[in-house]
Amino acid sequence: MERRSFLRTGLAFGAVGMSGGLSLLPELACASTRTASDGALRLNSNENPFGIAPAARSAIIDNLSEANRYPRAIRTDMVEALAKLNGVKPENIVLGNGSTEVLQMSVQALAQPGAKLVLADPTFEDVPRYARPYTYDLQKVPLTANHAHDIGRMKEIVDASRGRALVYLCNPNNPTGTLTPSADIDAWIAAGADDVYFLVDEAYYEYCTDPGYWSCVKFINDPNVIVTRSFSKIYGMAGMRLGYAMAHETTAARLREYIASSNANYLALAAGHASLEDSDLISRSRAANAEGTRILHEALDEIGLEYLPSYTNFVMHRINGDQDAYRKRMAEAGARVGRNFPPMLDYNRLSIGTPEEMGRFTDILLDFHTKGWV
Amino acid sequence: MERRSFLRTGLAFGAVGMSGGLSLLPELACASTRTASDGALRLNSNENPFGIAPAARSAIIDNLSEANRYPRAIRTDMVEALAKLNGVKPENIVLGNGSTEVLQMSVQALAQPGAKLVLADPTFEDVPRYARPYTYDLQKVPLTANHAHDIGRMKEIVDASRGRALVYLCNPNNPTGTLTPSADIDAWIAAGADDVYFLVDEAYYEYCTDPGYWSCVKFINDPNVIVTRSFSKIYGMAGMRLGYAMAHETTAARLREYIASSNANYLALAAGHASLEDSDLISRSRAANAEGTRILHEALDEIGLEYLPSYTNFVMHRINGDQDAYRKRMAEAGARVGRNFPPMLDYNRLSIGTPEEMGRFTDILLDFHTKGWV
Repeated sequence: MERRSFLRTGLAFGAVGMSGGLSLLPELACASTRTASDGALRLNSNENPFGIAPAARSAIIDNLSEANRYPRAIRTDMVEALAKLNGVKPENIVLGNGSTEVLQMSVQALAQPGAKLVLADPTFEDVPRYARPYTYDLQKVPLTANHAHDIGRMKEIVDASRGRALVYLCNPNNPTGTLTPSADIDAWIAAGADDVYFLVDEAYYEYCTDPGYWSCVKFINDPNVIVTRSFSKIYGMAGMRLGYAMAHETTAARLREYIASSNANYLALAAGHASLEDSDLISRSRAANAEGTRILHEALDEIGLEYLPSYTNFVMHRINGDQDAYRKRMAEAGARVGRNFPPMLDYNRLSIGTPEEMGRFTDILLDFHTKGWV
Repeated sequence: MERRSFLRTGLAFGAVGMSGGLSLLPELACASTRTASDGALRLNSNENPFGIAPAARSAIIDNLSEANRYPRAIRTDMVEALAKLNGVKPENIVLGNGSTEVLQMSVQALAQPGAKLVLADPTFEDVPRYARPYTYDLQKVPLTANHAHDIGRMKEIVDASRGRALVYLCNPNNPTGTLTPSADIDAWIAAGADDVYFLVDEAYYEYCTDPGYWSCVKFINDPNVIVTRSFSKIYGMAGMRLGYAMAHETTAARLREYIASSNANYLALAAGHASLEDSDLISRSRAANAEGTRILHEALDEIGLEYLPSYTNFVMHRINGDQDAYRKRMAEAGARVGRNFPPMLDYNRLSIGTPEEMGRFTDILLDFHTKGWV
């Protein structure tokens, strides 16, 4: 109980010792709902707990009278803004209803009888799901001991194949939150063969400040590289369904053959613009996420539960017990936590909520520890 | 000039002689923008000129604090609401980012080497576009003299094929606005073979009150029938990207293999719910559309330009001259009108704006007539 009191105190004054972005927490918080309608902490979907940016809210309201119009000019504007942001050309940008739609377009555009789909195990589930109705030969490669992509093993599999290979690299990786050194990926891409395609999912790109990490957008002139980004994570727009791919002009055109007409939502595009123009959105989201992560780490350290390093807005940690029982008990205690991510069933993926939410969560977790449940 | 004055007067008092929904026009109008930022009349995309419903606006604002959350419960609620509305089961409903996404899923799920895709010429362009990267054998069948689908000819082509056929029926048809008798479609579906699928696009369903027209949802127990609906038209939500398919449970499951994860936009679902609960939205949209159509018809009659009967929110009318020149002149005069719909290049498709907009448009059209341009 002492520990729990400490955490509450630590939370109440959590911002005091921090510089920069955290002074903006109240502004962020006013735009958010902390809990579901049933009062549960929602720490299960890697959503940004602070909600969409205040500027995005205003943009949505300002554009309500255009919600009956197909997005045309605003779509073009977004493509140009994203090209400028990333130092590429508008022809390189493919918009999606969430980055998941551009992942889907990629899987569909590159499907071919006998093509291999090589990906980590575990990794984000949408890509193998999109591949299911196609003829891909799925090759799941366990992560290394450091929970990085096993580039060496993946490359062996690709090199041994004669036909097309699509390599899916989620970096940082979901659900582990871990990093694969960008230099290793660079080396492979540089050595890649004509029929080897790299689909690099950078949904958590903005959270990662590690010096060994950088975007694969540097390969924009290589037709075999596709990079995807999301507005769902650091921009807090998961419900708005907005993401994009960056690829060589010819590859981008191939993807667009599979695009859903008139994507994306008009208000999502308006909110996206406003978010891009909110110049400290990223730094304040990062700062708040770092503080929430610190609170969680402290509690996990306290009770001796191992966790993976995270370069994202979630943490994969041990639970010392049955996954389903853990999740059920957490739900009963008022917290929604991560689902099963086989084969890592002795870990749970926890999304980072607001510092206040992480205080509530760690109270529950410490109580579980006292009860011998973790 | 007398004619133009008459039209203006007719407009100002247009609601007087109408009963029912038109008394709600001011409420509708307050939610709309009549013109583009450049001041142009937007009569080119079959959008509902009155904007989203006031209740939908409120629902969006009320749900802004959930825009950072993936749509889960609200998605389930929408599926249940649509099932109830249409007298089907939730398992029969497939949500889409616009009905175009469910059209795309259908084309993808039913693709097969050698499969025929049989559709009208002209008809809505998205379906053949989605088929392009697949191996469909595209069979375009000219409309009848009455601009209905040529069911007899389409059936001949299907009957002569040995493999799978996907028949796309857009009813009422876009871009002609015309109707194919539902009894004719019923008879064909009832006689259909195992490998013949019917994709029935009912985007304009709610506008059509003709007694010879009804939905193909009556075939919900036939695994070979897919019906699609849209929130873009009578519900005025084109920018929100929300639509759905209704199909037999097993067919719906096949479509979902191609669904983009976490569709649709949270705020679109919230707005959609509010729109469904707005019990007189359909009747007032219909009434306003009828009044706008009446104004257009009157002007077309006045100058002797033939037009097709419309069961939608747009009218296909003759232009007596070059399509591109007409569109360019209209743009210069401040009106965006329909694009090229080959082979009907001597017609232009005009979306029905508000009665006030149709007054402005017909002023321009009558002026064009005076100048000998139409």
